[in-house]
Amino acid sequence: MIPVDWGTSTFRAYRLAPDGKILETRSAPKGILAVEAGRFPQVLEEQVGDWLAAGEAPVVMSGMVGSRQGWAEVPYVQCPAGFDELARNLTRVEWGKRQAWIVPGLSFVDEAGVPDVMRGEEVQILGSLPALPRSACWICLPGTHSKWAQVEEDRIAGFRTHMTGELFSVLKSHSILGRMMQDGAFDDTAFAEGVQRSGEADGLLHHLFGVRTRGLFGELSGSQAPSYLSGLLIGHELRQADVSGKIFLLGAPELAAHYSQAARLLGIEIEPLDPQAAARALWLLARNKA
Amino acid sequence: MIPVDWGTSTFRAYRLAPDGKILETRSAPKGILAVEAGRFPQVLEEQVGDWLAAGEAPVVMSGMVGSRQGWAEVPYVQCPAGFDELARNLTRVEWGKRQAWIVPGLSFVDEAGVPDVMRGEEVQILGSLPALPRSACWICLPGTHSKWAQVEEDRIAGFRTHMTGELFSVLKSHSILGRMMQDGAFDDTAFAEGVQRSGEADGLLHHLFGVRTRGLFGELSGSQAPSYLSGLLIGHELRQADVSGKIFLLGAPELAAHYSQAARLLGIEIEPLDPQAAARALWLLARNKA
Repeated sequence: MIPVDWGTSTFRAYRLAPDGKILETRSAPKGILAVEAGRFPQVLEEQVGDWLAAGEAPVVMSGMVGSRQGWAEVPYVQCPAGFDELARNLTRVEWGKRQAWIVPGLSFVDEAGVPDVMRGEEVQILGSLPALPRSACWICLPGTHSKWAQVEEDRIAGFRTHMTGELFSVLKSHSILGRMMQDGAFDDTAFAEGVQRSGEADGLLHHLFGVRTRGLFGELSGSQAPSYLSGLLIGHELRQADVSGKIFLLGAPELAAHYSQAARLLGIEIEPLDPQAAARALWLLARNKA
Repeated sequence: MIPVDWGTSTFRAYRLAPDGKILETRSAPKGILAVEAGRFPQVLEEQVGDWLAAGEAPVVMSGMVGSRQGWAEVPYVQCPAGFDELARNLTRVEWGKRQAWIVPGLSFVDEAGVPDVMRGEEVQILGSLPALPRSACWICLPGTHSKWAQVEEDRIAGFRTHMTGELFSVLKSHSILGRMMQDGAFDDTAFAEGVQRSGEADGLLHHLFGVRTRGLFGELSGSQAPSYLSGLLIGHELRQADVSGKIFLLGAPELAAHYSQAARLLGIEIEPLDPQAAARALWLLARNKA
């Protein structure tokens, strides 16, 4: 079986044994933005053609590969949704004599009527179910577009997205805050000061300007400023979460460590999960198509 | 007398009669970012050399021209500050046989110990004093870096900056939100929806992502999206203001109209002021140097 997590910027494939054990992992900077329209089959063959030639099947893919800019647009499935809803809505794509399945993303409409979407995170969340309590809980997937999902009775009840990572990136690269920044090692103290600042008066739009003014007055060096900005934004995200009880965290180790640090500073209990959970969920979905 | 408002992106000069009446106004896209180091005297001569040759004096300049990237760095004066503090701290620059005066900017340290700064807005605020009540009041100067200043007994008691305009600009030009945007006429309804959204649950980082998802679901067209984002950001700024009583508004007509619309939607009383107030304050400062 070949589960593929094919996102905006990264292609990641696993070769699994029939019992779900990961035999091999491959990843490449071949996210959907790096693939020309119509070239998805070729890129898949380039990455895992030898596995396919060896008869490995089925291929089950999740992530932005199912978006309008991906291989084929697969409609979102509405929350609440679990394995059954995803399995019923797998979409088949074919090339030559081969085929693969794309997992749908999820949508959710909040109380105010505003829609939200995810593609890819749903399989990471469902793959983590064995590590979660049976009672309702929150799981956070930090990133460019951080997801906060409420899981209840083995289904994703709802979720919300925070643009934390992308805002950090555009401010660092394109705003006046970025002009004073220098690359440097992550600075724990500056990060903690940012987390602290996120709880003070006057809100995020005001706090952002403080990155510049603290720099102007020599309170923050160019290499500390990115860590301070990161703490500020992650602090705002965590404070908005307004969840009770423990939060489960599913993300790449470095980013997960920063979220864990911020949560500790805010007195929020947080438990990291295995970031390779996606492969497990895709394996469960793939078993239906074997 | 020649008051000059010399900011980051715009050079604006006034020729005033001795009684303060504006005889002529000139502006050019010759903000300090468009001036090479050491070329400030030449640019000033290019813009108002004929007035100088006719013996018009003194020249009094405010804004980013007094910053590290400007003609000469003039230290900030700490709040509370009024005309007296600015007049005592005018800094002279000379070129050839001519001279001009640069008005210092202001700094303020909030209760949490974080500094804030302004350069140029202080003269706009002080120029508006005749239109303000004697009691303490708030004045808002919307823009790239919106300023909210508290004025009390003819002095600026303190202030805070919101990065509203710059955040709008970087998100429109460089984020995933901008990719779906098209230029179009300002859309009142979309703007009002953004202002409304700013008061709903989960905060700005989450609300921003809704610009994208509402677009994905056809609730917001590409040409409406900029107005919605603008309403969202201005709504967040106004809600954070947390001021009681009437707010006075000092800004360019189009932007001031948007802030007035948002304030009405939020039930905040707002009164626009004459945006040419800066010339009056610079005239009062210039009289000391005539």
